[in-house]
Amino acid sequence: MGSGDEQLPEIVVLGQPVVFELYDEQFCSRFRFLRPWESEEPLPHFLASRGRSTQAAICSGDFSLSAAVLANLPSLRLVVTSSAGLNHIDLTECRRRGIAVAYAGNFFSPDVADLAVGLLIDVLRKVSAGNRFVNNGLWPHKPDFPPGFKLGGKRVGIVGLGSIGFEVAKRLEAFGCGISYYSRKQKPFVSYTSYSTIHELASNCDVLVLCCSLTEQTHHMVNREVMLALGKDGVIVNIARGAVIDEKDLVSCLLRGEIAGAGLDVFEHEPRPSPELYQLDNVVLSPHNAVLTEESMEGLYQLICGNLDAFFIGKPLLSQVPDE
Amino acid sequence: MGSGDEQLPEIVVLGQPVVFELYDEQFCSRFRFLRPWESEEPLPHFLASRGRSTQAAICSGDFSLSAAVLANLPSLRLVVTSSAGLNHIDLTECRRRGIAVAYAGNFFSPDVADLAVGLLIDVLRKVSAGNRFVNNGLWPHKPDFPPGFKLGGKRVGIVGLGSIGFEVAKRLEAFGCGISYYSRKQKPFVSYTSYSTIHELASNCDVLVLCCSLTEQTHHMVNREVMLALGKDGVIVNIARGAVIDEKDLVSCLLRGEIAGAGLDVFEHEPRPSPELYQLDNVVLSPHNAVLTEESMEGLYQLICGNLDAFFIGKPLLSQVPDE
Repeated sequence: MGSGDEQLPEIVVLGQPVVFELYDEQFCSRFRFLRPWESEEPLPHFLASRGRSTQAAICSGDFSLSAAVLANLPSLRLVVTSSAGLNHIDLTECRRRGIAVAYAGNFFSPDVADLAVGLLIDVLRKVSAGNRFVNNGLWPHKPDFPPGFKLGGKRVGIVGLGSIGFEVAKRLEAFGCGISYYSRKQKPFVSYTSYSTIHELASNCDVLVLCCSLTEQTHHMVNREVMLALGKDGVIVNIARGAVIDEKDLVSCLLRGEIAGAGLDVFEHEPRPSPELYQLDNVVLSPHNAVLTEESMEGLYQLICGNLDAFFIGKPLLSQVPDE
Repeated sequence: MGSGDEQLPEIVVLGQPVVFELYDEQFCSRFRFLRPWESEEPLPHFLASRGRSTQAAICSGDFSLSAAVLANLPSLRLVVTSSAGLNHIDLTECRRRGIAVAYAGNFFSPDVADLAVGLLIDVLRKVSAGNRFVNNGLWPHKPDFPPGFKLGGKRVGIVGLGSIGFEVAKRLEAFGCGISYYSRKQKPFVSYTSYSTIHELASNCDVLVLCCSLTEQTHHMVNREVMLALGKDGVIVNIARGAVIDEKDLVSCLLRGEIAGAGLDVFEHEPRPSPELYQLDNVVLSPHNAVLTEESMEGLYQLICGNLDAFFIGKPLLSQVPDE
């Protein structure tokens, strides 16, 4: 580290956000970073000894920013998380301590919606299964690849009609799908049919696309009962958080043919999806990369730097988490 | 075969359309079929001996209905092909002989467009590659799956703005793509930018989606020169016919990184795609199943029967190929 770096503002990095690895060099030309994972010290010791004067942190979406961790950073005034979700951060403690939180907000919504639609087409039209079929050299021997299912006319239920849910709905309307939803708050200016329970939504749909936050209320919300209501021709797409589905129930419903298929970007225990989900032709698995495009990483790098710059010169943050 | 079947109208089946296999029983309750593939006689002998009085034929999209084949069917007055494409039928000879031709017309366009979009998202967002990555158990060991590319903002060039091309354009607009096209005829009522050569279209686009017919003019239209114009970040989706692309050029451009990826439902020599295309993470292969959904097969069954019924009672056909 050159001596000029000492002038740069100091940031502690909690977790290892992908964007930080991809833009390591660019980040380092603008800030000076504490990297706990490079130290042999346990995190609490590292923070207690090295982070006493650190005012700002970058945090990844899979790092649990608890009150205990925050207690080791007495000077902290800003957390910038690289995620849109906030369930990994103790917001109450941040608020109590006067720590501002900036996040990715709706920045990723179009990319996440794109993957949701891609997973849905993939499951219905057997794209990954067809790719495997051709790649394994089976086509000349079994000319009749089984038909898939039409997307047009499918009744799609959006679970959580926030920014991502809206983007998914907009795209699927262009394919001729009917849209309805179940959301915490009813949306008064929306023409889509709203159902007051997830069970009712599932009973009236062919497809569920999960776009909600993970909260105590949504934990295991999509369970066996909901899947039975969706029915044996039903398909589930999850680009929300793994634990919104009861993964054990999902596995058993898929294996028994009680639902028709699933496209999953998220899992209860990442990076280890239930092994029974592997190699099923009606299931498409994706390594939690719904936000991961070259373009979004470049934009996220800019957004994180913009928030840090704003903080250090005392201007309003670009994407501050609003108060409840 | 029961004696009552003798009363049913006789149809010769040329090629083995998938819909005929899927709806065999239903077809047989309404018509009596000659099935040349079940005979040991060569086709010309079979037709010459058994088909002299046959008035109607069902024909698959991969059966070459040449003047020589037609010569063995002197009483033929109707051909119903299960395909939307017509390049396998000698239309001039049919016209000369007064044989009406019915086809699937635009019936499949939405399903084909859905698969085109699915293949594009799959290539850009690495869906099949990600599925393979998770299924092979790599996720816990290599947590950083490489980022894909954003669909929003991509400049998509539609090659052949017919019914399928329009359906593709409509869908991709909802993802925030810019649309332009190259087509035999300029479309006066369309706001998309039109280019007068395929080369010019490729130079101004990030993605080419091939939706044109296969004709002498379009054979190998997408060659190395066009791919170089598209450039190293470019992606090609082909749901038209294999020979619209020079597959040898495609393989070499993909292997040298001169284009970024491809999603292919069709190939020059089906069912044998160039083996160099197998197992590439930036290529998605599909076994020519863009039209193949349960719903479209049911609809196609109805359409074929409707055409045959209309013919035998002397009513206008449901989907006759228009005169040039």
